Amino acid sequence: MKAPSTDGRASASVSVTQAEPEGVVDARVSPLGSLENLSQREVQQLLSSGQGGVYDLFRRCALAVLSSGLESDDVRAIFDRYKDFEIRLGRQAWGIKLEVKNAPASAFVDGSMIRGIKEHLFAVLRDIVYIHDAILGSQRFDLTDSASITNAVYHILRNARILDYKGRPDLVVCWGGHSISSVEYDYTKRVGYELGLRALSVCTGCGPGAMKGPMKGATIGHSKQRIREGRYIGMTEPGIIAAEPPNPIVNQLVIMPDIEKRLEAFVRCAHAIIVFPGGAGTAEEILYLLGILLDPANADQPVPVIFTGPPSAAEYFGQIDRFIGATLGEAARSRYKIIIGDPPQAAREAYKGIESVREYRRTKSDAYNYNWLLKIPEDFQRPFEPTHEAMARLELRRDLPSHVMAANLRRAFSGIVAGNVKENGIHAIEERGPFELHGDKEVMTLLDELLSAFVRQKRMKLAGEYKPCYRLVA
Amino acid sequence: MKAPSTDGRASASVSVTQAEPEGVVDARVSPLGSLENLSQREVQQLLSSGQGGVYDLFRRCALAVLSSGLESDDVRAIFDRYKDFEIRLGRQAWGIKLEVKNAPASAFVDGSMIRGIKEHLFAVLRDIVYIHDAILGSQRFDLTDSASITNAVYHILRNARILDYKGRPDLVVCWGGHSISSVEYDYTKRVGYELGLRALSVCTGCGPGAMKGPMKGATIGHSKQRIREGRYIGMTEPGIIAAEPPNPIVNQLVIMPDIEKRLEAFVRCAHAIIVFPGGAGTAEEILYLLGILLDPANADQPVPVIFTGPPSAAEYFGQIDRFIGATLGEAARSRYKIIIGDPPQAAREAYKGIESVREYRRTKSDAYNYNWLLKIPEDFQRPFEPTHEAMARLELRRDLPSHVMAANLRRAFSGIVAGNVKENGIHAIEERGPFELHGDKEVMTLLDELLSAFVRQKRMKLAGEYKPCYRLVA
Amino acid sequence: MKAPSTDGRASASVSVTQAEPEGVVDARVSPLGSLENLSQREVQQLLSSGQGGVYDLFRRCALAVLSSGLESDDVRAIFDRYKDFEIRLGRQAWGIKLEVKNAPASAFVDGSMIRGIKEHLFAVLRDIVYIHDAILGSQRFDLTDSASITNAVYHILRNARILDYKGRPDLVVCWGGHSISSVEYDYTKRVGYELGLRALSVCTGCGPGAMKGPMKGATIGHSKQRIREGRYIGMTEPGIIAAEPPNPIVNQLVIMPDIEKRLEAFVRCAHAIIVFPGGAGTAEEILYLLGILLDPANADQPVPVIFTGPPSAAEYFGQIDRFIGATLGEAARSRYKIIIGDPPQAAREAYKGIESVREYRRTKSDAYNYNWLLKIPEDFQRPFEPTHEAMARLELRRDLPSHVMAANLRRAFSGIVAGNVKENGIHAIEERGPFELHGDKEVMTLLDELLSAFVRQKRMKLAGEYKPCYRLVA
Amino acid sequence: MKAPSTDGRASASVSVTQAEPEGVVDARVSPLGSLENLSQREVQQLLSSGQGGVYDLFRRCALAVLSSGLESDDVRAIFDRYKDFEIRLGRQAWGIKLEVKNAPASAFVDGSMIRGIKEHLFAVLRDIVYIHDAILGSQRFDLTDSASITNAVYHILRNARILDYKGRPDLVVCWGGHSISSVEYDYTKRVGYELGLRALSVCTGCGPGAMKGPMKGATIGHSKQRIREGRYIGMTEPGIIAAEPPNPIVNQLVIMPDIEKRLEAFVRCAHAIIVFPGGAGTAEEILYLLGILLDPANADQPVPVIFTGPPSAAEYFGQIDRFIGATLGEAARSRYKIIIGDPPQAAREAYKGIESVREYRRTKSDAYNYNWLLKIPEDFQRPFEPTHEAMARLELRRDLPSHVMAANLRRAFSGIVAGNVKENGIHAIEERGPFELHGDKEVMTLLDELLSAFVRQKRMKLAGEYKPCYRLVA
Repeated sequence: MKAPSTDGRASASVSVTQAEPEGVVDARVSPLGSLENLSQREVQQLLSSGQGGVYDLFRRCALAVLSSGLESDDVRAIFDRYKDFEIRLGRQAWGIKLEVKNAPASAFVDGSMIRGIKEHLFAVLRDIVYIHDAILGSQRFDLTDSASITNAVYHILRNARILDYKGRPDLVVCWGGHSISSVEYDYTKRVGYELGLRALSVCTGCGPGAMKGPMKGATIGHSKQRIREGRYIGMTEPGIIAAEPPNPIVNQLVIMPDIEKRLEAFVRCAHAIIVFPGGAGTAEEILYLLGILLDPANADQPVPVIFTGPPSAAEYFGQIDRFIGATLGEAARSRYKIIIGDPPQAAREAYKGIESVREYRRTKSDAYNYNWLLKIPEDFQRPFEPTHEAMARLELRRDLPSHVMAANLRRAFSGIVAGNVKENGIHAIEERGPFELHGDKEVMTLLDELLSAFVRQKRMKLAGEYKPCYRLVA
Repeated sequence: MKAPSTDGRASASVSVTQAEPEGVVDARVSPLGSLENLSQREVQQLLSSGQGGVYDLFRRCALAVLSSGLESDDVRAIFDRYKDFEIRLGRQAWGIKLEVKNAPASAFVDGSMIRGIKEHLFAVLRDIVYIHDAILGSQRFDLTDSASITNAVYHILRNARILDYKGRPDLVVCWGGHSISSVEYDYTKRVGYELGLRALSVCTGCGPGAMKGPMKGATIGHSKQRIREGRYIGMTEPGIIAAEPPNPIVNQLVIMPDIEKRLEAFVRCAHAIIVFPGGAGTAEEILYLLGILLDPANADQPVPVIFTGPPSAAEYFGQIDRFIGATLGEAARSRYKIIIGDPPQAAREAYKGIESVREYRRTKSDAYNYNWLLKIPEDFQRPFEPTHEAMARLELRRDLPSHVMAANLRRAFSGIVAGNVKENGIHAIEERGPFELHGDKEVMTLLDELLSAFVRQKRMKLAGEYKPCYRLVA
Repeated sequence: MKAPSTDGRASASVSVTQAEPEGVVDARVSPLGSLENLSQREVQQLLSSGQGGVYDLFRRCALAVLSSGLESDDVRAIFDRYKDFEIRLGRQAWGIKLEVKNAPASAFVDGSMIRGIKEHLFAVLRDIVYIHDAILGSQRFDLTDSASITNAVYHILRNARILDYKGRPDLVVCWGGHSISSVEYDYTKRVGYELGLRALSVCTGCGPGAMKGPMKGATIGHSKQRIREGRYIGMTEPGIIAAEPPNPIVNQLVIMPDIEKRLEAFVRCAHAIIVFPGGAGTAEEILYLLGILLDPANADQPVPVIFTGPPSAAEYFGQIDRFIGATLGEAARSRYKIIIGDPPQAAREAYKGIESVREYRRTKSDAYNYNWLLKIPEDFQRPFEPTHEAMARLELRRDLPSHVMAANLRRAFSGIVAGNVKENGIHAIEERGPFELHGDKEVMTLLDELLSAFVRQKRMKLAGEYKPCYRLVA
Repeated sequence: MKAPSTDGRASASVSVTQAEPEGVVDARVSPLGSLENLSQREVQQLLSSGQGGVYDLFRRCALAVLSSGLESDDVRAIFDRYKDFEIRLGRQAWGIKLEVKNAPASAFVDGSMIRGIKEHLFAVLRDIVYIHDAILGSQRFDLTDSASITNAVYHILRNARILDYKGRPDLVVCWGGHSISSVEYDYTKRVGYELGLRALSVCTGCGPGAMKGPMKGATIGHSKQRIREGRYIGMTEPGIIAAEPPNPIVNQLVIMPDIEKRLEAFVRCAHAIIVFPGGAGTAEEILYLLGILLDPANADQPVPVIFTGPPSAAEYFGQIDRFIGATLGEAARSRYKIIIGDPPQAAREAYKGIESVREYRRTKSDAYNYNWLLKIPEDFQRPFEPTHEAMARLELRRDLPSHVMAANLRRAFSGIVAGNVKENGIHAIEERGPFELHGDKEVMTLLDELLSAFVRQKRMKLAGEYKPCYRLVA
């Protein structure tokens, strides 16, 4: 547990103290008890790829997973500290074995890898191999086609056994910042606890902060209700996994190929969505969600959305609410509820919403475990590469149709996340200075207010002074 | 339970008596508790295929599975009797649902489908979809290439969760006839019982007779040893499934694309192989196995092979042994043991052999659940289509190298199986008369002796007078 | 598997062949995985008892359990053959360990005790200790008082975890002879199979014949329905356990203190009762049951009773039916149904009857797992010691009230069972000649007919010429 | 979660917020899924006892269990607030049902009782019935005899299924105060977390504070290690249960008859003991333990004892250590280790100690689940009734043999606990003023220092000004 810093910013109240947190460990990791089997073809594909290929991707994600206990979102610092990290793949009697060298000591307890982390390591292997071989390498999926993308997302989730669950709808997707105050963190734990008491399961982006709190709380709630099969699903993607490494409570981890497919996975799996306070990433998620829900095809879809936080977050949500009202209009505001300082009520609201989802799916013969009927416009599916050019090209004008506005704002925040915590983004900013965002005065003013608040509230980065990666140009 | 017929030929001592065995049932079958999830893409592929396409294949395999209780190998009679059988696929809240019309009543108990049969139905769906979409339709596998075939077999088995098992090597593949005497049938049960007492699992071709007996025996043995996780694996393929429908004890069923991939699946999954008395199909299996084991690359591979039966089968195995000696030589004879009338000894021999397999795989770092190191020459992997022309072209001469001889003999028996019980084969024989097999006098004489004995011992067909589908030409 | 003997009498179609069936084994048996914990007090009580005490009782029951594979009801021959059998009790890290010397080899597979038999051994230990310490030694139970006896039976069953089951009523008690023809044996298997297909559980007196067949059948039925938690309950008592040792499929074994408490356990646990053909023991059970059901207090109790057997048993049940009609009257005849040659129908009838039991208990707020409301008159609870004097004293007159008649007839058959297969009874007969039974001519004639038929049909003993242990005196 | 009070004293960081914490609920509670079966005899015993009898005891313990969420140790206030609380017992189809009226709302989530609390309610029922019927009412146990007491403790634990566990030794008993600072509370969570990561289980006195923290921490640790079978054992007794109600994470609860048997249960079940900071109750536990370990018969017994706390507790443990050194001598000091501010090290020390316990038990053939070989002198087994007279009679002199000193000091602290939080004790103090403790000056001075520190550090009571219930007389 890290010492509480002066600004009252702390995250986990229970976490491992490493006698030598900087230490590294060499280990052989056998998947005994886990379920991964790779064919020779898959192993060879992984091994034969050179620098920058799929193996490199695997190594970086593996390191991210092993860094789970470090609680830093300074990706480059982590990659730098463990630049000697190696991971090797071999066949053995029990299937595949992995050998790691110079791995972060925090992933181990007295020399043995924490079992949850071990499972994550093999999940990374499973997903990267599957995406490479069966999705990208198979010519079965045309990833420029909307229906084909939706099928690909389904296949990846199915392969990761996320869809195996056959119980009643129970999955609450929780969004929110990885860098939040201890009061907000405790609040997310309490909401998670109330969800757990009501036998609901939790899915998050699987980093620290608002992505960890609900899972810890739910663990205690499930324990009190004697629920042993509680699901703690983490959905990540290679770009974000290092900044927000999955906490080991996550018992189902899936690595999606990119941001947009991860967002699609969230909304197609969710039976309810709770949004806690957060920064640019949370804003991106909110805009993505509302943009989709504004599509007329989804008008009848019940998708319970709850914004909630402690009393100290009332101001924050007021600001978000105003921003949405001003940019997307009242229709967007009608798709969520704001609940302040009342975890049981937030949980009850989610529970009630899930009932209506169940009824709707049953009536429409749609699957409980994947929302096929939800329409996701291609604008929201197409990957957005946040280059300086792409960012500068984004139109942010008050007179755009609200779904276009939502799509563009989503991209703008996506770019800011990249500039803040993703390796490529940070590099681009260092090379060429902040992204420029253009728009009319009204939108730029609204955006400025919101982003300034994020900075002021220290929601952009875990540690250190924040230097904006963007510049707003009216 | 059918009344014991005059020739002492009976199979199951425990089986369902249908008040109206000819009856048909309409039902809606939901996979609750099973694990199948299909994407829209997969559902559409299945539905959009016309007459003769993948849907037709699915319908026929489904009917075969539902005919499990009927105990007939007269495929055309079954297909004829249930010509009005329909099966429809639909999406629903819990995933995929199936609706059957005019299904055989024997698959139901008081109106509910027997759970084991329901699982088989969804296994058929899963495998046919997977083979069509992910193997044949994906361009990842070059099915003319040996390594690629081996990978494809692995992918199919993995998708069917056959490879999930992570315990010690324990899998005994049992081969033998579907049409055997009640004394032989009881013997297979007793061997299965002894295997079960020793915590071994059983894999068969999943029809009646020698494919059902060991599973029933193992069920009792496992029960006495309080083993709840016993595996009863059935491996079949579309051509044979109707003649040898899986018995519902099978708790892991996989449908392989063709005979050769099914045989490869058997030998790569097996930790030991027990061969009971049988007919042409069993001879095909023996020749396939010995042909592979004769390959110098497999000289060190421990593959325990045990031929066993009751005292009344001593003569039968003597004949097989002589045939092998005369056609493939002493090297082939050294790869199996013959144990007569001693089920515990057969089980102990399998157990001991498995220990050496375990040791070998561990030393060589090969997987316990898939024998990657076994070399299967392409000759044995390439599908053989038993047309009259192909059968006539087979060279069966004493002077051939023994592995070529084994491969050709294997094909000859494969053709006879087709002519006996497979739809296409029966049709071809009706059209054009018996297959002609050519070879030198010595081989033809040996073959004639063996085949005549099969006919005399009623090993060719379950019921009725047997009319040979072949003619030997010296 | 024993060779079919000339009289067509065979039992298990699957059973262990011992290479050296006469052999003995020494072994140390640790209860790892079983749940028995004994206090020092309990261990000392067991050890400190001298010859003829509780330890002696334990030794005899333990030997009986270990003789399970021997299939002989010649108790004295077994005790004689294994007169050097020893069993010792010791404490160890994992709890209690047992050391056996000169134990029957049939209880072992390749040197390891069959797990089911090991569980039985510890069940014997558990029950004998509990009965001695917590029932007989505790002064909490007045075993001359009806309510107190019923409580004691409950406490013994609870301690043996028979009452842990919390599912829907599903327990079919199966009665019938241990010495039956192979046709009858197969029929009991088929009924068990049909019960298993309907998710029903089986409880028997746990010997061979009609006590083993339904369990084996149910094992296969449960396996096809993927029911892993099927219960195979065996209820025995020290006097009968050696003649009818529990077969290892029994996964819940309880040793009751005496015949009457065993009978009470049967009827209070049963949700339905199926009676197969049998001999004197079966007659005792039928008379016990009907005697109770004739009590006016039980007039409303639904207790489904089905007499069933293959067509060849039609004559047998006709005779029983006539005997009941003539001695107990039409009221008694109305409490059972006779189903000949239709296993599915017998199972359906049991299933339907259980539904009415469920409804009745629910309405009356009586426990599903113990029929508290059933009245068992003290006459049926009081132990009957079948001395020559007691047998001679029994009144068997046509003019007795039917419940007195039932009670006395029950005792008469109980005495005959003792004279046939129980150690004390056999000894008494050897000393003093056959028991004499007195009654009026009519009853004596009926009884003579019935008993003669049992003898003729070889229902009295497994092997050898039967020499009656009784003499009827009109 | 209660609002943080001004003295920084807070306990659970995750706990339920009741919209109406003062509310009451009526409910019918069925034990579906739990395992309790009561005989009619047991039900009648419970129901027939009048005011002050066993039913009254049951009602009070039941209320205590239901008050779990209230976080007050003011027993009388609780009993007063819920004076209308009623609980009724009835039989039903599934066994026993309970009906509660006016129960604390905090035990329910949206109208349903929290499952963990429901289990506790039935555990209370089970233990009170068993102690009354099978221990006190059975004449099997002479509770004035040391061996007999030890057997009785074993029987109670066995009946509560505490002894069912058959794995490796893993049980860490955690002692410490219910009223501790939030820094200390967090520390107990971190130690519990480290224990959980090492697959160790936790046993505590099952109240709040140091009894809850380790369980919550272990829950998270187990979750990360994918341990689903973690044991969270709570041991309480009727006198303390209301002041320290079991938190619902406890998944095995046992109510022992009195303080001394509870202490015996702790030490005979423990494989290691960790002591966190606490007040009089913790001091009682420490003195009990050291008194026993000083007995020469236990000289070889490895019993790992670790005193641990955050840096802020260093002073506290120094004081305890000095007090022990001065009163019991160096021999006593050698039986524990003090670890400050290092949770992983505390866990490692426990782990290592458990290894030596395992080795010792194995060598000595003592049970892993109950330390039969530990000698507990009768002085420590005999119940101490803390009347004013008994307290005044205690000899606390420097010249006493150390085991007598330990026994008397243990009693003194036991009396202070009673005066602080037990109903009878509080009542006695109100009637007759503080207890007087007599001793020589040296001991009185040491005691005064220790007790004053407890008062100063607010370790005596959860809330309010502490008014000492004792007076020291040198």
